[in-house]
Amino acid sequence: MESKGRFITLFETAEFLSGKDNFLILTHQNPDGDTLGSGFGLAMILDKLGKKSTVICSDEIPKKYEYFTSLAPQNADLQKALTVIAVDVADTKLLGDLEEKYADKVELCIDHHVSNVGYAKATYLDGSAAANCECIYELAKLLGVEVDANMALALYTGISTDTGCFRFSNTTAKTHRIGADLIELGIDSAEINRVMFETKSRIRVELERMALDAMQFHFNNRCAVIVITREMYEKTGCKDEDLEGITAIPRSIEGVIVGVTLREREQGGFKISVRTYPPVDASAICKRVGGGGHIRAAGCQLGAEYSTEDAVKEMLKHVKAVMEESFAGTVTDK
Amino acid sequence: MESKGRFITLFETAEFLSGKDNFLILTHQNPDGDTLGSGFGLAMILDKLGKKSTVICSDEIPKKYEYFTSLAPQNADLQKALTVIAVDVADTKLLGDLEEKYADKVELCIDHHVSNVGYAKATYLDGSAAANCECIYELAKLLGVEVDANMALALYTGISTDTGCFRFSNTTAKTHRIGADLIELGIDSAEINRVMFETKSRIRVELERMALDAMQFHFNNRCAVIVITREMYEKTGCKDEDLEGITAIPRSIEGVIVGVTLREREQGGFKISVRTYPPVDASAICKRVGGGGHIRAAGCQLGAEYSTEDAVKEMLKHVKAVMEESFAGTVTDK
Repeated sequence: MESKGRFITLFETAEFLSGKDNFLILTHQNPDGDTLGSGFGLAMILDKLGKKSTVICSDEIPKKYEYFTSLAPQNADLQKALTVIAVDVADTKLLGDLEEKYADKVELCIDHHVSNVGYAKATYLDGSAAANCECIYELAKLLGVEVDANMALALYTGISTDTGCFRFSNTTAKTHRIGADLIELGIDSAEINRVMFETKSRIRVELERMALDAMQFHFNNRCAVIVITREMYEKTGCKDEDLEGITAIPRSIEGVIVGVTLREREQGGFKISVRTYPPVDASAICKRVGGGGHIRAAGCQLGAEYSTEDAVKEMLKHVKAVMEESFAGTVTDK
Repeated sequence: MESKGRFITLFETAEFLSGKDNFLILTHQNPDGDTLGSGFGLAMILDKLGKKSTVICSDEIPKKYEYFTSLAPQNADLQKALTVIAVDVADTKLLGDLEEKYADKVELCIDHHVSNVGYAKATYLDGSAAANCECIYELAKLLGVEVDANMALALYTGISTDTGCFRFSNTTAKTHRIGADLIELGIDSAEINRVMFETKSRIRVELERMALDAMQFHFNNRCAVIVITREMYEKTGCKDEDLEGITAIPRSIEGVIVGVTLREREQGGFKISVRTYPPVDASAICKRVGGGGHIRAAGCQLGAEYSTEDAVKEMLKHVKAVMEESFAGTVTDK
């Protein structure tokens, strides 16, 4: 969607929220900790300001984030005029099934993706924030809302999940200082991280083993590809939510700078995640197939007309092209 | 070793260092990021104070920490009287081959293990520090030494590796604030974490798959055990340094509260790591076999008289006993 709105400051964002009520907070499809932490965190802030809100998402909330829903009252009056806000949603396409109904109605977007196209009437964008929850935390401070332990839980979860627990290159000194503030509010950060990162279902462990067995290496071992086929889903009984973080695996192999993970969708076609290390731009690869994202982590989709083999071939073509641009030379498949 | 020394404040520690010179800095055997970060970090501080020092260890420095050695001049005059300091060493037993020569000569120990027995003439112990490198950072501040990017590199590495990148329950608000300070000194924390955590050799990936294949579950799936046998070492060609972090795997399975990893040593016998979740005390399990450590992470050894099967049986006996104490009831093996 073309840009149509204007970009505003955090202060204007606070003013906007202060002057409105009855908020509908949109989160992105395939919701993660940051979009949900932002949504429910914002709902808690609005509640403290005596305002009503409800958080919605096109997709089901993964089990490990379900506890968010009990932290904030979901009390917008859907029969009355709503103030529609989107959080951590870079493009209306990412609203999933909610796109049709709400794409043109988003009055405010709070986001940290530099790829945000400015689809909302007003957008607060902090591209330096590792997680959108950092913006929500700063907004709470600016609004004079006391951040309590429940808010801290939601915001810490968003920050931790979007930074791989302070590991990724998006992590800044500010990210750590906000993390410190949130921990001081009494949350059990280790327990959050255990649930978010450490605990794997036995199903997941089995699936990882299968995926590793089938891992392919290309371009002189600088690119690793794993495909999660429907057969693997069926054999292990895993769901999409069991797969979170699996996209980090290919890039984690020594020497690999482009990791590609293809998940075969139930309805056919593939959901694809690309993770890179410098100098390769993951979003440049995904943009070539109509996707997008960040420089080190991006995503795209391929339709049901692609067989597994063709989908891998298609992605390798674009990986090769972007690698050749990055290295200013020919990349051969070995 | 019995306690013989006294416990001192950080201020007294700074005074001690100010009044001495020609330091020999001892680190613990099987050196990790925290003992080496503490050692080389302290060496850099001493260098800035115009003092000479050399860091030593009974074992070879793992490849990924080798860069530490180029950060600090190693210039103690070993022919003259030395001031012997130990960092991150809870017990003289952990000095390995250096124990015999130095056990009685440690004038100062800087440590964060609450199990520190006070073997040094003077010990600065901060049991609330997630990593000993936090203590070294605070010491630099107290001594008025400007922490530069090289020091930050060593100290960040120690903090990150000892907290699982700010993930474990030892992580505090202070840990994050020091992390923030260090990042502001211009270090590439993502690159450090990539080397420390994300990058796995293909050998390591292969070994993990073997270990997972052979994983055993006990006590109603609450205990998981993996054994890294000599055969696995040989098949994959892996070294001990390829194994770092492998001890986190058993406990990472959903429902597991005691994870036990046995590594068969080249000379026979086993090096054993125990990782637990509440309410089970890992150090209580290891103490029963002459080992020790922290409440969630501890270690012990079993001699060459144990076969693999016997070693597992022996450990399960102690796991069972401590689980029964923890749950105040009988634990049966299913």
